[in-house]
Amino acid sequence: MPKHLQRQIEQLKQKILFVGSMVEGAIANAVAALVHRDESIARKVLEEDAEIDRMEVDVEEDCLKILALYQPVAVDLRFVVAVLKINNDLERMGDLAKNIAKRVLYLSRVDRVDVPVDFRAMAIRAQDMVKRSLDALVSADSSLAHRVRQDDDELDNMRRAIHEKIRAAIRAKPEQTETLMKLYSVAKHLERLGDMATNVAEDVIYMVEGDIVRHQVEE
Amino acid sequence: MPKHLQRQIEQLKQKILFVGSMVEGAIANAVAALVHRDESIARKVLEEDAEIDRMEVDVEEDCLKILALYQPVAVDLRFVVAVLKINNDLERMGDLAKNIAKRVLYLSRVDRVDVPVDFRAMAIRAQDMVKRSLDALVSADSSLAHRVRQDDDELDNMRRAIHEKIRAAIRAKPEQTETLMKLYSVAKHLERLGDMATNVAEDVIYMVEGDIVRHQVEE
Repeated sequence: MPKHLQRQIEQLKQKILFVGSMVEGAIANAVAALVHRDESIARKVLEEDAEIDRMEVDVEEDCLKILALYQPVAVDLRFVVAVLKINNDLERMGDLAKNIAKRVLYLSRVDRVDVPVDFRAMAIRAQDMVKRSLDALVSADSSLAHRVRQDDDELDNMRRAIHEKIRAAIRAKPEQTETLMKLYSVAKHLERLGDMATNVAEDVIYMVEGDIVRHQVEE
Repeated sequence: MPKHLQRQIEQLKQKILFVGSMVEGAIANAVAALVHRDESIARKVLEEDAEIDRMEVDVEEDCLKILALYQPVAVDLRFVVAVLKINNDLERMGDLAKNIAKRVLYLSRVDRVDVPVDFRAMAIRAQDMVKRSLDALVSADSSLAHRVRQDDDELDNMRRAIHEKIRAAIRAKPEQTETLMKLYSVAKHLERLGDMATNVAEDVIYMVEGDIVRHQVEE
């Protein structure tokens, strides 16, 4: 029985890493679509989100099956519960990427505004946080998870710098307010992606250390 | 044993309803603080969020205990798993209320801008969605959960109407861009509260109907 349980848990790890890689791809594509104002890439992100949604249901069913059939305890139980929550977060990260793609469909139809903001750097950082938070999960590595938490500050700073530039652009050209606010919302979405990767990291720390880190300020 | 399990589940229901009522209170207070530009109410929301955070950890520990000690199956297992996810959402709703309260601390220190937007109506609607989604959970009432999902459209429309007004105000007075964007972010936060109540409702529908409603468009 425990051998079967371990095999199931191993498969669950592979599956959640796979969902994570889909989410990373969605973030990368959504921002590539934005940078190139490419509607076809944006539409691809919208289509592929349906697959992330299906995977979420699939992973949740696997978790329920493991709980019902193998009745894991201790570290295995905590792992399955962590996956249940993180799976939920991954699906919402997919939704955030989808929302960015929807903004691109709008932005590719209006005049391009000239604001020198670097969304790509934010996207790379957000993807990296997603990847490392899941690596921390499957290797039960809480020190890696702590580092992901710290990275979130940098993403917040990037968002703040973009906010400054966009606010200045609005003041200079108020007639472009709508387009500029849509552009700013992309930065907000990328920041929220980082927040969600931070949530994942905190779930990992809680799983490993049983510690209530979620509501403490990182030193 | 099943009698003990039922008692534990009953207690879990009471506890999650209690957390829900705290979150409703936080939303109401955050928006009251905004409407009256009242820093002391805003600070109260910030303080009370720590209690919501503690309750989240407490509820999660209860869920883990029930899973480990009573090894529930079928409907009981689905209920505990739904609570695990919904508990997570409630904590984040508390964070959104806290973020609104932080905006109030900023807004109460700058000149008041004159935009006729009705945040109170949005807040009442969001609170109501939180309350009814949890009622749907504890009574396993999927038809109530379906109605919560439908309500979300109205909240989105309210947010859109506020967006229009704020955009017009920015165009008219670009020098107030920062304050107006902060004000708009309150509407975004209230919309996200509705989104999260919708997530809760969808978890309830999934729990009751075992249906993959989460990724279907409501008719």
